[in-house]
Formats: sequence, structure tokens, C-alpha cells
Amino acid sequence: MPQELPHVLAFDVFGTVVDWHSSIARESSELAPGIDGAKFARAWRRGYIPAMQRAQAETGDAPWKNLDVLHREILDSILPDFGLDDMSETDRDHLTHAWHRLDPWPDSVAALRRLRKLFVITPLSNGNISLLTHMAKNAGLPWDCVLSAEVFGHYKPAPQTYLGVAKVFNLEPQQVMLVAAHHIDLDAAQDCGLQTAYIERPFENGTDRTKDVSPSARHPLHMKDLGALADYFDQLKREDSQ
Amino acid sequence: MPQELPHVLAFDVFGTVVDWHSSIARESSELAPGIDGAKFARAWRRGYIPAMQRAQAETGDAPWKNLDVLHREILDSILPDFGLDDMSETDRDHLTHAWHRLDPWPDSVAALRRLRKLFVITPLSNGNISLLTHMAKNAGLPWDCVLSAEVFGHYKPAPQTYLGVAKVFNLEPQQVMLVAAHHIDLDAAQDCGLQTAYIERPFENGTDRTKDVSPSARHPLHMKDLGALADYFDQLKREDSQ
Repeated sequence: MPQELPHVLAFDVFGTVVDWHSSIARESSELAPGIDGAKFARAWRRGYIPAMQRAQAETGDAPWKNLDVLHREILDSILPDFGLDDMSETDRDHLTHAWHRLDPWPDSVAALRRLRKLFVITPLSNGNISLLTHMAKNAGLPWDCVLSAEVFGHYKPAPQTYLGVAKVFNLEPQQVMLVAAHHIDLDAAQDCGLQTAYIERPFENGTDRTKDVSPSARHPLHMKDLGALADYFDQLKREDSQ
Repeated sequence: MPQELPHVLAFDVFGTVVDWHSSIARESSELAPGIDGAKFARAWRRGYIPAMQRAQAETGDAPWKNLDVLHREILDSILPDFGLDDMSETDRDHLTHAWHRLDPWPDSVAALRRLRKLFVITPLSNGNISLLTHMAKNAGLPWDCVLSAEVFGHYKPAPQTYLGVAKVFNLEPQQVMLVAAHHIDLDAAQDCGLQTAYIERPFENGTDRTKDVSPSARHPLHMKDLGALADYFDQLKREDSQ
């Protein structure tokens, strides 16, 4: 490790810590048994980046739209494609809150518990504070605090989010590490001076849609999962104390 | 209980959850053995409300000054009164961070663990996010998330803080309860429509300066400590489920 150890680990959440695809596929097909849940989950998630970009472009001019609002707008827009135009208000609301109930990847909770002994750990997610708080309570994610795009008034990959974590903790950017399963997120964090760790999540989009998780030269800290990241830092700390 | 049960309990922290007086008295007299630590702690804390009011008055015009910065300014201003003009930069910084290491009252951790099973629990403190995060990690406070004046860009008792909690959780103000040992805080929260619970902390300012903890008609939910509040809600939930 060429750099100093970070003080704070900030985690991308959707895909990195929790398995949005399986959870949304399951909840949507429970609510609407006729549909292809996996396809529905992917359609919903596909609306995410454009919605985020529109919201980020409006920053400053319009009141803040949190991710619950954006998730609901995307849901309303995809329901007709699945023949679900007549879904009730109650069901739309319930399904939107499925994003508050996402399951963690099998390694996440134990790894976060270990990493929490070594660092301050926080989400840095585009999910709103209540979504992340309910998710943590439901899934047992042991965050030290809950940071969100909502705290900084900007969506990732805006620099205000990554630099915001450093500022909140009165740290230099290189004393913070972003942990994420997406290069776009890591690239933006690195451009702000943060350290980065890539986490392979090959089945983020479903087991039948294996994602390319090849190493990238920009992010040499490349880990199979969060458990491997915890192993890595445990080892490093042991060497450090010898 | 005439009102619906709250969904979120928001806690004042300094004095309500943690014992700032003993902790600051101890750390300051460890660092400067000649001084009266209890008096020093009270002098430091006395600067708090005016500093907060000045910072709140500047909101919008000036960049946000977090509580670490205000604590440091107050410290610098009181050191001469204790003959400590020559305290080093390192020691001033160390002592300012004593507010990140405050001890909980003996009942706090166990009571918060119980209340967390019934509600979403969060601090709503003028302490900055990193202060509250380090404090929680150090003292074992099991918050579900960390809300602070810093998140809302206003210091309590500004309405934006109390209403901010409701907004973040997409709740009506009356679905949030503020738990605090100070009437000024509870009055302001109640003016915004929040439910309130008063916690007696007679020795907040030291065992030799017993605080008046008489009940107030405005805040009929009046509890000896957080353990008693947890007992109260446990009982209420039991009756509710019968």
C-alpha cells in the first residue's frame, strides 16, 4: 500500500453492499405475479442514472428531489411496459419502499463489522437518509453514521459528495477511501483525491447477466468482495503493528 | 398517551445522553492539573449558547461554522481566565476533541438499545456529524443514523432542525418525538408540532450544582432517565398489542 491508511471508508451501497436486483425482482414478482421480476428490476434500475443526472442538473434551481421521489417517478414510467398501469397507489408506494428493504450480499454484514473496528465506516450513496437508515436497520448494516447525497445536496458522481465526506470529518481527501463496485463512481472519487477500492459484484444485474469485473489500472485495490477487503486491511494492520 | 406513538425518536445529546460536565472536567484537569476542572467545564459550556446564537444569526451570510470550530473559539477565549494562555496548539486541539469522547450517562446505552427495537432513533444535536459519530463509536451509542444541525444548516432551537427530522423521514411533525433534558429545546420542538419527552438530568452541571428538574405543564411526558422512557414505551407497546 503506497498511501497512508485511510481514516474513513465510504461505501457505495446499491450493488456494492446490497443486492438490489434479487430483492427488487422478488418483491415485484410477489406483488405482480405475472411479470418477469428480473426484467422489471433491471428496467427500474435503468431509469436510475438518467433520473439522477436530471436531478443533479436541476440542483440549485429546484427543491431537492430525494431518491424515494425519483424511484417512484421511474416506477410510474415503467409500469405500462409491464401491463401494470392499474397498480394501486398503495402498491406503488409499497414497491417504492422495497428499496428500503434490500438484502445485503452474504459477506457484507460480517465484513462491515470487521472494518468498523479499524475505520469509521459510512455509506456514501445516492439513496436518501431515511432509505439508508431503514435499510441498515432491516439488514443489520453497522454504519457509524449515515451520509447520503441528501446531506450534500448533490448526487454522485458530483465532487461535492466525495469532498463532502472529507470535509465533514475534517480530513484531506486522500484520508478517505471510496469502496464501490462501479468504475464511474471510483473514477470520480479518485479525481477528487480519494483513495479507492473496487469490489467485484459479478451478479449485480442478475445471475444470468454476469458483469465484467476485470481489474482496472486506475483502481489497483481490486477485491472479490467486502470480506476480502476486511482480510486485506486486517493483514495490513497486523504488519503495521509488528 | 393521547397522541399516536411516534415513529422516530430524536435525542438531544449534550446533557441528555452524555455527561459533558464530568468528562470535560476530567480531561481538562488531566491536561492542566492546577485548574478547577468542574469550573473550567462550566465556563466552556457557558460560551455555548451565545456562540450558537451568533452562528445561527450568521446563517446564510457566512460559511457554516461547525461545533468543533465554535468549541475551539470558546476554549481560546476562556484559557486566559484560568491562567492557561500558553497552552500549546496540540493541547488545545486535543482538548477541543474531548467533546468527541464524552461519557454516556450510566443508563443511556442500555436504554437506547431497547428504544431502538421500537423506533428509529437518531441524535438531533448541535454537535457536528463527526463529533457525534466519534462519540457514538467511543461510547457505544447505537444510533440508527446521525442527524445534526450540520445536516440542516441551522442550529437548534431553529425550526429547520426539528422539521428537518420529520422531512427526512417523510413524516408529519407529530410523528417525531424530541427527547431532551432542556425546556428551551423541547418548547421549540413542540412549537413545530413534535411530541416531546423531558429527561431529568439533575447533575448535568455537576453534583454540587443540582439543576431544577421540576415537571413542566407543557411537557407532561417527564422521565427520571432514558431507562424510565424505555420502560414507559415497553409498557405502552405491551398494552397496545393486547
